[in-house]
Amino acid sequence: MMALSAKSVVCLCFLFSFCHVRGAHITLEMNKSILNLRKHYNISKAVEYNGQLDFKEWIPEKLLEKRVFMRGVLETYEALINKMLKELPTPPPHTTGSEGGVGEGGAGDDVRTDLNCILRMILKLKTIHYNEQDNLLSSLKKLMGIKMDSVTVQMKALRQLPWLYDEASDLTNEIQNRRRRRHAQRVKIHQRG
Amino acid sequence: MMALSAKSVVCLCFLFSFCHVRGAHITLEMNKSILNLRKHYNISKAVEYNGQLDFKEWIPEKLLEKRVFMRGVLETYEALINKMLKELPTPPPHTTGSEGGVGEGGAGDDVRTDLNCILRMILKLKTIHYNEQDNLLSSLKKLMGIKMDSVTVQMKALRQLPWLYDEASDLTNEIQNRRRRRHAQRVKIHQRG
Repeated sequence: MMALSAKSVVCLCFLFSFCHVRGAHITLEMNKSILNLRKHYNISKAVEYNGQLDFKEWIPEKLLEKRVFMRGVLETYEALINKMLKELPTPPPHTTGSEGGVGEGGAGDDVRTDLNCILRMILKLKTIHYNEQDNLLSSLKKLMGIKMDSVTVQMKALRQLPWLYDEASDLTNEIQNRRRRRHAQRVKIHQRG
Repeated sequence: MMALSAKSVVCLCFLFSFCHVRGAHITLEMNKSILNLRKHYNISKAVEYNGQLDFKEWIPEKLLEKRVFMRGVLETYEALINKMLKELPTPPPHTTGSEGGVGEGGAGDDVRTDLNCILRMILKLKTIHYNEQDNLLSSLKKLMGIKMDSVTVQMKALRQLPWLYDEASDLTNEIQNRRRRRHAQRVKIHQRG
Protein backbone atom coordinates (compact mmCIF):
# COMPACT_ATOMS: atom_id res chain seq x y z
CA MET A 1 0.00 0.00 0.00
CA MET A 2 2.85 2.31 0.96
CA ALA A 3 4.73 1.42 -2.24
CA LEU A 4 1.63 2.14 -4.30
CA SER A 5 1.17 5.56 -2.66
CA ALA A 6 4.81 6.46 -3.21
CA LYS A 7 4.44 5.50 -6.85
CA SER A 8 1.29 7.63 -7.17
CA VAL A 9 3.06 10.60 -5.61
CA VAL A 10 5.95 10.24 -8.05
CA CYS A 11 3.50 9.98 -10.97
CA LEU A 12 1.55 13.03 -9.77
CA CYS A 13 4.75 15.04 -9.29
CA PHE A 14 5.85 14.10 -12.80
CA LEU A 15 2.42 15.06 -14.17
CA PHE A 16 2.42 18.41 -12.36
CA SER A 17 5.95 19.22 -13.46
CA PHE A 18 4.99 18.36 -17.05
CA CYS A 19 1.87 20.56 -16.85
CA HIS A 20 3.97 23.34 -15.42
CA VAL A 21 6.54 23.16 -18.21
CA ARG A 22 3.97 22.88 -20.98
CA GLY A 23 2.01 26.03 -20.23
CA ALA A 24 4.50 28.00 -18.25
CA HIS A 25 4.91 30.83 -20.72
CA ILE A 26 1.24 31.59 -21.38
CA THR A 27 -0.20 34.02 -18.81
CA LEU A 28 -3.67 33.41 -17.40
CA GLU A 29 -4.82 36.66 -19.04
CA MET A 30 -3.59 35.53 -22.48
CA ASN A 31 -5.21 32.13 -22.10
CA LYS A 32 -8.52 33.75 -21.09
CA SER A 33 -8.34 36.14 -24.04
CA ILE A 34 -7.87 33.23 -26.47
CA LEU A 35 -10.85 31.38 -24.97
CA ASN A 36 -13.02 34.54 -25.09
CA LEU A 37 -12.20 35.12 -28.75
CA ARG A 38 -12.87 31.51 -29.74
CA LYS A 39 -16.24 31.76 -27.97
CA HIS A 40 -17.02 35.10 -29.63
CA TYR A 41 -16.21 34.03 -33.21
CA ASN A 42 -17.61 30.54 -32.58
CA ILE A 43 -16.84 28.51 -35.73
CA SER A 44 -18.16 24.95 -36.10
CA LYS A 45 -16.13 22.21 -34.44
CA ALA A 46 -16.27 20.14 -37.66
CA VAL A 47 -14.46 22.91 -39.56
CA GLU A 48 -12.09 23.78 -36.70
CA TYR A 49 -10.82 20.23 -36.34
CA ASN A 50 -10.75 19.14 -40.00
CA GLY A 51 -6.97 18.68 -39.86
CA GLN A 52 -6.15 21.51 -42.25
CA LEU A 53 -3.65 24.24 -41.34
CA ASP A 54 -1.73 22.28 -38.73
CA PHE A 55 1.31 24.41 -37.85
CA LYS A 56 2.77 21.60 -35.73
CA GLU A 57 3.24 19.49 -38.86
CA TRP A 58 5.21 22.26 -40.57
CA ILE A 59 7.88 22.63 -37.86
CA PRO A 60 11.31 21.58 -39.19
CA GLU A 61 13.40 19.13 -37.17
CA LYS A 62 16.73 20.95 -36.83
CA LEU A 63 17.04 23.39 -33.93
CA LEU A 64 18.22 26.42 -35.90
CA GLU A 65 15.66 25.88 -38.67
CA LYS A 66 12.97 25.46 -36.02
CA ARG A 67 13.94 28.82 -34.63
CA VAL A 68 13.73 30.58 -38.00
CA PHE A 69 10.33 28.95 -38.53
CA MET A 70 9.12 30.01 -35.08
CA ARG A 71 10.02 33.60 -35.81
CA GLY A 72 7.87 33.24 -38.94
CA VAL A 73 5.04 31.86 -36.81
CA LEU A 74 5.23 34.86 -34.46
CA GLU A 75 5.22 37.28 -37.40
CA THR A 76 2.23 35.47 -38.90
CA TYR A 77 0.30 35.79 -35.64
CA GLU A 78 1.26 39.45 -35.40
CA ALA A 79 -0.13 40.13 -38.89
CA LEU A 80 -3.21 37.98 -38.20
CA ILE A 81 -4.13 39.78 -34.95
CA ASN A 82 -3.54 43.17 -36.57
CA LYS A 83 -5.88 42.15 -39.40
CA MET A 84 -8.54 41.05 -36.90
CA LEU A 85 -8.20 44.37 -35.06
CA LYS A 86 -8.69 46.30 -38.30
CA GLU A 87 -11.79 44.27 -39.14
CA LEU A 88 -13.51 45.28 -35.87
CA PRO A 89 -16.25 47.91 -36.15
CA THR A 90 -14.99 51.34 -35.08
CA PRO A 91 -16.35 52.23 -31.62
CA PRO A 92 -19.11 54.92 -31.55
CA PRO A 93 -17.44 58.33 -30.97
CA HIS A 94 -19.35 59.52 -27.85
CA THR A 95 -19.64 56.30 -25.84
CA THR A 96 -18.31 56.48 -22.30
CA GLY A 97 -17.84 53.67 -19.80
CA SER A 98 -18.25 50.96 -22.43
CA GLU A 99 -16.29 48.33 -20.45
CA GLY A 100 -19.42 46.77 -19.00
CA GLY A 101 -21.60 47.27 -22.08
CA VAL A 102 -23.52 44.37 -23.51
CA GLY A 103 -24.42 46.07 -26.83
CA GLU A 104 -22.40 45.84 -30.05
CA GLY A 105 -19.93 48.52 -28.94
CA GLY A 106 -19.28 46.71 -25.63
CA ALA A 107 -18.68 43.34 -27.28
CA GLY A 108 -16.40 45.02 -29.85
CA ASP A 109 -14.40 46.61 -27.04
CA ASP A 110 -14.00 43.28 -25.27
CA VAL A 111 -12.78 41.65 -28.46
CA ARG A 112 -10.36 44.53 -28.99
CA THR A 113 -9.01 44.17 -25.44
CA ASP A 114 -8.50 40.43 -25.90
CA LEU A 115 -6.80 40.86 -29.26
CA ASN A 116 -4.52 43.57 -27.88
CA CYS A 117 -3.57 41.36 -24.93
CA ILE A 118 -2.50 38.54 -27.30
CA LEU A 119 -0.68 40.96 -29.60
CA ARG A 120 1.31 42.38 -26.67
CA MET A 121 2.46 38.91 -25.62
CA ILE A 122 3.46 37.97 -29.18
CA LEU A 123 5.43 41.19 -29.66
CA LYS A 124 7.13 40.67 -26.28
CA LEU A 125 8.38 37.19 -27.18
CA LYS A 126 9.36 38.29 -30.69
CA THR A 127 11.24 41.41 -29.61
CA ILE A 128 13.11 39.88 -26.70
CA HIS A 129 14.01 36.46 -28.07
CA TYR A 130 13.51 36.42 -31.84
CA ASN A 131 15.05 39.66 -33.01
CA GLU A 132 18.00 38.19 -34.86
CA GLN A 133 15.92 36.23 -37.40
CA ASP A 134 14.45 39.40 -38.92
CA ASN A 135 16.50 39.51 -42.15
CA LEU A 136 15.78 36.09 -43.63
CA LEU A 137 12.01 36.30 -43.50
CA SER A 138 11.77 39.76 -44.97
CA SER A 139 14.19 38.70 -47.74
CA LEU A 140 12.12 35.60 -48.51
CA LYS A 141 8.96 37.69 -48.62
CA LYS A 142 10.59 39.98 -51.18
CA LEU A 143 11.65 36.95 -53.25
CA MET A 144 8.14 35.52 -53.21
CA GLY A 145 6.65 38.84 -54.21
CA ILE A 146 8.61 39.05 -57.47
CA LYS A 147 6.41 39.65 -60.54
CA MET A 148 7.69 36.91 -62.80
CA ASP A 149 5.67 37.82 -65.89
CA SER A 150 7.45 41.15 -66.37
CA VAL A 151 10.23 41.05 -68.98
CA THR A 152 12.08 43.78 -67.05
CA VAL A 153 12.07 41.60 -63.93
CA GLN A 154 13.16 38.56 -65.97
CA MET A 155 16.12 40.42 -67.47
CA LYS A 156 17.15 42.04 -64.19
CA ALA A 157 17.17 38.57 -62.64
CA LEU A 158 19.10 37.07 -65.56
CA ARG A 159 21.79 39.75 -65.31
CA GLN A 160 22.37 38.87 -61.65
CA LEU A 161 22.37 35.10 -62.18
CA PRO A 162 26.13 34.57 -62.76
CA TRP A 163 27.07 36.28 -59.49
CA LEU A 164 24.32 34.55 -57.50
CA TYR A 165 25.03 31.13 -59.00
CA ASP A 166 28.66 31.48 -58.04
CA GLU A 167 27.78 32.67 -54.54
CA ALA A 168 25.39 29.74 -54.05
CA SER A 169 28.06 27.28 -55.22
CA ASP A 170 30.74 28.82 -53.00
CA LEU A 171 28.44 28.69 -49.99
CA THR A 172 28.24 24.93 -50.34
CA ASN A 173 32.03 24.64 -50.15
CA GLU A 174 32.11 27.02 -47.19
CA ILE A 175 29.62 24.89 -45.24
CA GLN A 176 31.45 21.66 -46.09
CA ASN A 177 34.73 23.18 -44.86
CA ARG A 178 33.08 24.30 -41.64
CA ARG A 179 31.69 20.81 -41.07
CA ARG A 180 35.15 19.32 -41.67
CA ARG A 181 36.74 21.74 -39.16
CA ARG A 182 34.08 20.87 -36.55
CA HIS A 183 34.57 17.16 -37.11
CA ALA A 184 38.35 17.54 -36.75
CA GLN A 185 37.84 19.49 -33.52
CA ARG A 186 35.55 16.77 -32.14
CA VAL A 187 38.09 14.04 -33.02
CA LYS A 188 40.78 16.10 -31.26
CA ILE A 189 38.68 16.42 -28.09
CA HIS A 190 37.92 12.70 -28.19
CA GLN A 191 41.63 11.79 -28.55
CA ARG A 192 42.58 14.12 -25.69
CA GLY A 193 39.83 12.70 -23.50
CA MET B 1 62.84 47.01 -62.97
CA MET B 2 63.06 43.39 -61.85
CA ALA B 3 61.24 44.25 -58.60
CA LEU B 4 58.50 45.98 -60.57
CA SER B 5 58.04 42.97 -62.85
CA ALA B 6 57.90 40.61 -59.91
CA LYS B 7 55.26 42.83 -58.31
CA SER B 8 53.26 42.90 -61.55
CA VAL B 9 53.42 39.10 -61.79
CA VAL B 10 52.17 38.76 -58.21
CA CYS B 11 49.36 41.24 -58.91
CA LEU B 12 48.39 39.45 -62.12
CA CYS B 13 48.44 36.06 -60.37
CA PHE B 14 46.21 37.46 -57.63
CA LEU B 15 43.86 38.94 -60.22
CA PHE B 16 43.67 35.69 -62.19
CA SER B 17 43.09 33.61 -59.06
CA PHE B 18 40.33 36.02 -58.05
CA CYS B 19 38.75 35.84 -61.51
CA HIS B 20 39.01 32.08 -61.39
CA VAL B 21 37.26 31.84 -58.02
CA ARG B 22 34.57 34.34 -58.95
CA GLY B 23 33.27 32.62 -62.04
CA ALA B 24 34.43 29.11 -61.54
CA HIS B 25 31.00 27.54 -61.25
CA ILE B 26 29.39 29.09 -64.33
CA THR B 27 30.07 27.07 -67.48
CA LEU B 28 30.94 28.86 -70.71
CA GLU B 29 27.71 27.50 -72.22
CA MET B 30 25.60 28.92 -69.38
CA ASN B 31 27.32 32.29 -69.61
CA LYS B 32 26.75 32.40 -73.37
CA SER B 33 23.09 31.49 -72.92
CA ILE B 34 22.59 34.35 -70.46
CA LEU B 35 24.23 36.84 -72.83
CA ASN B 36 22.15 35.56 -75.79
CA LEU B 37 18.91 35.96 -73.85
CA ARG B 38 19.78 39.44 -72.62
CA LYS B 39 20.52 40.41 -76.22
CA HIS B 40 17.30 38.81 -77.46
CA TYR B 41 14.96 40.47 -74.93
CA ASN B 42 17.00 43.69 -75.04
CA ILE B 43 15.50 45.96 -72.35
CA SER B 44 16.73 49.54 -71.96
CA LYS B 45 19.90 50.03 -69.87
CA ALA B 46 18.20 52.81 -67.90
CA VAL B 47 15.51 50.37 -66.68
CA GLU B 48 17.93 47.46 -66.20
CA TYR B 49 20.25 49.42 -63.94
CA ASN B 50 17.72 51.52 -61.98
CA GLY B 51 18.76 49.85 -58.72
CA GLN B 52 15.46 48.06 -58.16
CA LEU B 53 15.31 44.29 -57.48
CA ASP B 54 18.85 43.88 -56.21
CA PHE B 55 19.09 40.32 -54.86
CA LYS B 56 22.55 40.99 -53.45
CA GLU B 57 21.07 43.45 -50.96
CA TRP B 58 18.58 40.87 -49.70
CA ILE B 59 21.15 38.20 -48.73
CA PRO B 60 21.13 37.66 -44.94
CA GLU B 61 24.44 37.64 -43.06
CA LYS B 62 24.34 34.37 -41.13
CA LEU B 63 25.48 31.22 -42.91
CA LEU B 64 22.36 29.09 -42.29
CA GLU B 65 20.01 31.91 -43.23
CA LYS B 66 22.09 32.70 -46.30
CA ARG B 67 21.77 29.10 -47.37
CA VAL B 68 17.99 28.99 -46.93
CA PHE B 69 17.75 32.25 -48.87
CA MET B 70 19.95 30.88 -51.65
CA ARG B 71 17.72 27.82 -51.95
CA GLY B 72 14.86 30.32 -52.29
CA VAL B 73 16.81 32.17 -54.99
CA LEU B 74 17.37 28.95 -56.95
CA GLU B 75 13.66 28.08 -56.68
CA THR B 76 12.76 31.58 -57.87
CA TYR B 77 15.02 31.24 -60.90
CA GLU B 78 13.55 27.81 -61.61
CA ALA B 79 10.01 29.24 -61.61
CA LEU B 80 11.11 32.28 -63.62
CA ILE B 81 12.79 30.25 -66.37
CA ASN B 82 9.82 27.86 -66.54
CA LYS B 83 7.53 30.87 -66.93
CA MET B 84 9.71 32.26 -69.74
CA LEU B 85 9.66 28.85 -71.47
CA LYS B 86 5.86 28.75 -71.32
CA GLU B 87 5.61 32.25 -72.77
CA LEU B 88 7.56 31.23 -75.90
CA PRO B 89 5.52 30.73 -79.08
CA THR B 90 4.93 27.03 -79.78
CA PRO B 91 7.11 25.87 -82.70
CA PRO B 92 5.25 25.19 -86.02
CA PRO B 93 4.24 21.47 -86.13
CA HIS B 94 5.91 20.41 -89.44
CA THR B 95 9.20 22.30 -89.26
CA THR B 96 12.32 20.17 -89.63
CA GLY B 97 15.94 21.14 -89.11
CA SER B 98 15.04 24.37 -87.34
CA GLU B 99 18.33 24.60 -85.42
CA GLY B 100 19.91 26.92 -87.95
CA GLY B 101 16.73 28.83 -88.80
CA VAL B 102 16.76 32.60 -88.81
CA GLY B 103 12.97 33.03 -88.97
CA GLU B 104 10.63 33.39 -85.99
CA GLY B 105 10.61 29.66 -85.26
CA GLY B 106 14.43 29.53 -85.35
CA ALA B 107 14.87 32.43 -82.95
CA GLY B 108 12.26 30.85 -80.64
CA ASP B 109 14.19 27.58 -80.72
CA ASP B 110 17.45 29.34 -79.84
CA VAL B 111 15.79 31.08 -76.91
CA ARG B 112 14.32 27.74 -75.78
CA THR B 113 17.75 26.08 -75.97
CA ASP B 114 19.35 28.89 -73.92
CA LEU B 115 16.57 28.83 -71.30
CA ASN B 116 16.81 25.04 -71.02
CA CYS B 117 20.59 25.24 -70.58
CA ILE B 118 20.20 27.68 -67.64
CA LEU B 119 17.37 25.66 -66.13
CA ARG B 120 19.49 22.48 -66.20
CA MET B 121 22.33 24.21 -64.34
CA ILE B 122 19.99 25.65 -61.71
CA LEU B 123 18.33 22.29 -61.10
CA LYS B 124 21.75 20.61 -60.85
CA LEU B 125 22.97 22.99 -58.13
CA LYS B 126 19.64 22.82 -56.28
CA THR B 127 19.35 19.05 -56.33
CA ILE B 128 22.95 18.25 -55.43
CA HIS B 129 23.74 20.93 -52.84
CA TYR B 130 20.50 22.50 -51.61
CA ASN B 131 18.31 19.52 -50.88
CA GLU B 132 18.32 19.74 -47.09
CA GLN B 133 16.94 23.29 -47.00
CA ASP B 134 13.73 22.03 -48.55
CA ASN B 135 11.72 21.60 -45.32
CA LEU B 136 12.28 25.02 -43.83
CA LEU B 137 11.65 26.89 -47.03
CA SER B 138 8.45 25.01 -47.89
CA SER B 139 7.20 25.50 -44.31
CA LEU B 140 7.90 29.23 -44.49
CA LYS B 141 6.15 29.41 -47.86
CA LYS B 142 3.07 27.72 -46.36
CA LEU B 143 3.10 30.25 -43.51
CA MET B 144 3.32 33.17 -45.93
CA GLY B 145 0.46 31.77 -48.01
CA ILE B 146 -2.06 31.74 -45.15
CA LYS B 147 -5.35 33.51 -45.99
CA MET B 148 -5.58 35.83 -43.03
CA ASP B 149 -8.99 37.31 -43.81
CA SER B 150 -10.81 34.01 -43.28
CA VAL B 151 -12.43 33.68 -39.83
CA THR B 152 -11.91 29.90 -40.00
CA VAL B 153 -8.17 30.41 -40.52
CA GLN B 154 -8.07 32.99 -37.71
CA MET B 155 -9.76 30.61 -35.25
CA LYS B 156 -7.69 27.61 -36.27
CA ALA B 157 -4.58 29.70 -35.67
CA LEU B 158 -5.86 31.01 -32.34
CA ARG B 159 -6.58 27.47 -31.11
CA GLN B 160 -2.97 26.48 -31.79
CA LEU B 161 -1.42 29.60 -30.27
CA PRO B 162 -0.93 28.36 -26.66
CA TRP B 163 1.06 25.31 -27.79
CA LEU B 164 3.11 27.28 -30.32
CA TYR B 165 3.80 30.16 -27.94
CA ASP B 166 5.09 27.71 -25.39
CA GLU B 167 7.19 25.88 -27.95
CA ALA B 168 8.70 29.17 -29.17
CA SER B 169 9.53 30.21 -25.60
CA ASP B 170 11.07 26.83 -24.74
CA LEU B 171 13.19 26.89 -27.88
CA THR B 172 14.86 30.07 -26.69
CA ASN B 173 15.91 28.38 -23.44
CA GLU B 174 17.08 25.32 -25.36
CA ILE B 175 19.33 27.41 -27.64
CA GLN B 176 20.71 29.41 -24.71
CA ASN B 177 21.56 26.17 -22.88
CA ARG B 178 23.29 24.82 -25.98
CA ARG B 179 25.35 28.03 -26.30
CA ARG B 180 26.33 27.77 -22.62
CA ARG B 181 27.42 24.13 -23.09
CA ARG B 182 29.49 25.06 -26.16
CA HIS B 183 31.10 27.95 -24.34
CA ALA B 184 31.98 25.71 -21.38
CA GLN B 185 33.46 23.15 -23.77
CA ARG B 186 35.58 25.84 -25.45
CA VAL B 187 36.85 27.09 -22.08
CA LYS B 188 37.73 23.50 -21.15
CA ILE B 189 39.72 23.02 -24.37
CA HIS B 190 41.47 26.34 -23.80
CA GLN B 191 42.42 25.38 -20.23
CA ARG B 192 43.72 21.99 -21.36
CA GLY B 193 45.72 23.57 -24.20
